[in-house]
This record gives sequence, C-alpha cells and structure tokens, in this order.
Amino acid sequence: MVRESEIREGEVAIDLPTADDARLVFIGRIRTPWTSRLETPRQGRQDGPICRLEIFEPFVPAIKGVDFYENLEVIYWLHQSRRDLVLQSPKNNQKTRGTFSLRSPVRPNPIATSVVKLVGVEGNTILVRGLDCLDGTPLLDVKPYAAQLDAPPGGAVRSGWFDHADLGAPHTPSTLRDRRP
Amino acid sequence: MVRESEIREGEVAIDLPTADDARLVFIGRIRTPWTSRLETPRQGRQDGPICRLEIFEPFVPAIKGVDFYENLEVIYWLHQSRRDLVLQSPKNNQKTRGTFSLRSPVRPNPIATSVVKLVGVEGNTILVRGLDCLDGTPLLDVKPYAAQLDAPPGGAVRSGWFDHADLGAPHTPSTLRDRRP
Repeated sequence: MVRESEIREGEVAIDLPTADDARLVFIGRIRTPWTSRLETPRQGRQDGPICRLEIFEPFVPAIKGVDFYENLEVIYWLHQSRRDLVLQSPKNNQKTRGTFSLRSPVRPNPIATSVVKLVGVEGNTILVRGLDCLDGTPLLDVKPYAAQLDAPPGGAVRSGWFDHADLGAPHTPSTLRDRRP
Repeated sequence: MVRESEIREGEVAIDLPTADDARLVFIGRIRTPWTSRLETPRQGRQDGPICRLEIFEPFVPAIKGVDFYENLEVIYWLHQSRRDLVLQSPKNNQKTRGTFSLRSPVRPNPIATSVVKLVGVEGNTILVRGLDCLDGTPLLDVKPYAAQLDAPPGGAVRSGWFDHADLGAPHTPSTLRDRRP
C-alpha cells in the first residue's frame, strides 16, 4: 500500500492516544538499495540484494555469535508510516478491512518483522538478504530465527490472497497490486 | 532466562542511550494463565491454553476481518525486562553471547513476536493459542501470519541448540535449561 498521507474513501482515522506508553532506542540503521517507496519491493526475497544492518555503539558487542545462525529475525521501525488508521481500503475501492487483518505498514505501532538470510558479519555490520525496506530505516532488534519456534506446525496455513499471489517472481507494490484478486 | 535483575559473571551492561527515538502506544493487554515468570513457558505451544488479546479503544474497529486468518503474528512488550545487557551468560557459566544471537527477553528494545493460532473473536477480544507471556503483558500489534512470506523457504534451518531440544514436550524455563546442551 504505497501512499503518502491521503485517506481513501471508507477508511477511518482515529485520534491516536499519545504514544508514550513505552519508548524505543534505535540500535542501528538499515542500508538497502531502495530510496523511494514506489520502487521498494512489497516483500523481501531470500535471493534479493544484500542489505546492511549497521549497528550503532554501544550495541556493537551484542553482535557476538550472530554468525552462527543461518536465518535471523530483523525488527525495524517504519518511520514514514502514518499510525492513525483503524479501517483501511487496500484496493482503494471503499471496501475496508481492519488494520489488524492487514500487513500494511500503516499501524498504531509501525513495527515490521522480517526473516532474513545471514550473509556475513563485517565489523559493526551484519549483511543479510531478504529485506524489503527503505534505505535508512531505523533498526530495533536482531534475533536468531528458529523455524521450530516461529513457524506454526503443519503444512497448510490459510493466508488469504497471499496464497494466490505469485510471490516467487520479483514484485513491487504496483505489480503486486495487479496480481491481487 | 528467568532472572530478576542481577548480572551474572562475564556479562556486560552498557549505559543505555535515552530510549526516546520513537514511542509506542499500548493497543491492548494480553490475558494468560501465568502470573509468575518462573511458571511461564519458555515458548508458546499451539495446543496450549487459550489466551485473550483484549483490544483497547479506539483500536477495536481494527479487529475487523481478523477472523479470516488461521494464524496471527502477535507483537508485545516485555515490560519486566532489563534492557542494558549486550553480552549475556544464558547458562550462568561465564560464557557469554551477544544479545542479538539470543532470543532472551533482555534486549535494548524488549519486543517479542509470536505466531499464534486463532481461536475466535468475541467483541473487543481476540482468542488465541500459542502464547508464552505473563498475564497483563502490554500488546503492541496483531497481524495476519503468512507462511509464504514469514518463513524462509527450504527445509533445513540451522537454529543452534533449539534444533536438539525436545520442544514438543511441555516445558518451563527450568526444565528447558536442563535440556540445553
């Protein structure tokens, strides 16, 4: 859902309560090839370009041991997202869905999680593939990814229109929108 | 890693920078059967007890459509965790690992993510199985879980000692610690 800050017909914005229940510290910055939201892929690909997680001091020692893992969970802050929509119209057709039923970046707390493939560690920088965010995105956390813990058991997981979209091919928000049912 | 606030030998605490780069709003509260960290399971189980995600106003309309999904990603705030350790000693044996190579709740930004099974929606409450947190834990976000997007492709994922621990059996932090290699 690439948009600046306009509201679409049928959407509902709330007066967001003061966001001061907890505070975050940015532990680093994500460097990616994408500088415009229009060209940023909708979802990362494990064979996508290498992105860099630049860790700030004093958090650099926390990298120790990360290179043991094949996959990492990366948590980051979607700093350009508006936060006040509770009903959204993904297809811009007046049909709305609740924010908690969407993976849109527009959320009360715009926190994103991605599972990435570790490429290597160079000094204060963790190199990974599989991200889908803007260059300069603030980094919140890095954790080992454990499939046994993080993925639900069993095969079939119903994921709505994701199940039918051809996510194997490269895609941007505009191409993906065309493939949406 | 159940601990109050003591530091173990070999661990390194930092002067945490002021955590004010971004601010969170708690969108709800998680109700679980666990009121002590000692009895809280280390990881949720999809056949575990039903837990309740109580959504606060004005976010209740954002629930619309959540019941379409079989699995959800729940993001919450580990409000009792200390945030200043960059090196930790999980086994309390002077051997330390970096915080980013652990799934410990002790992190600069104590954000937890869990994939849960949807049981149902009742008014302002989403019922789920698969959580592992204390009763009263602040809720940050709820999103549809899409295996195609969130789980890395391919079978084998090396996850360290998780691979060898018998997580199929019920476990608490103390029993899990015994099984750690």
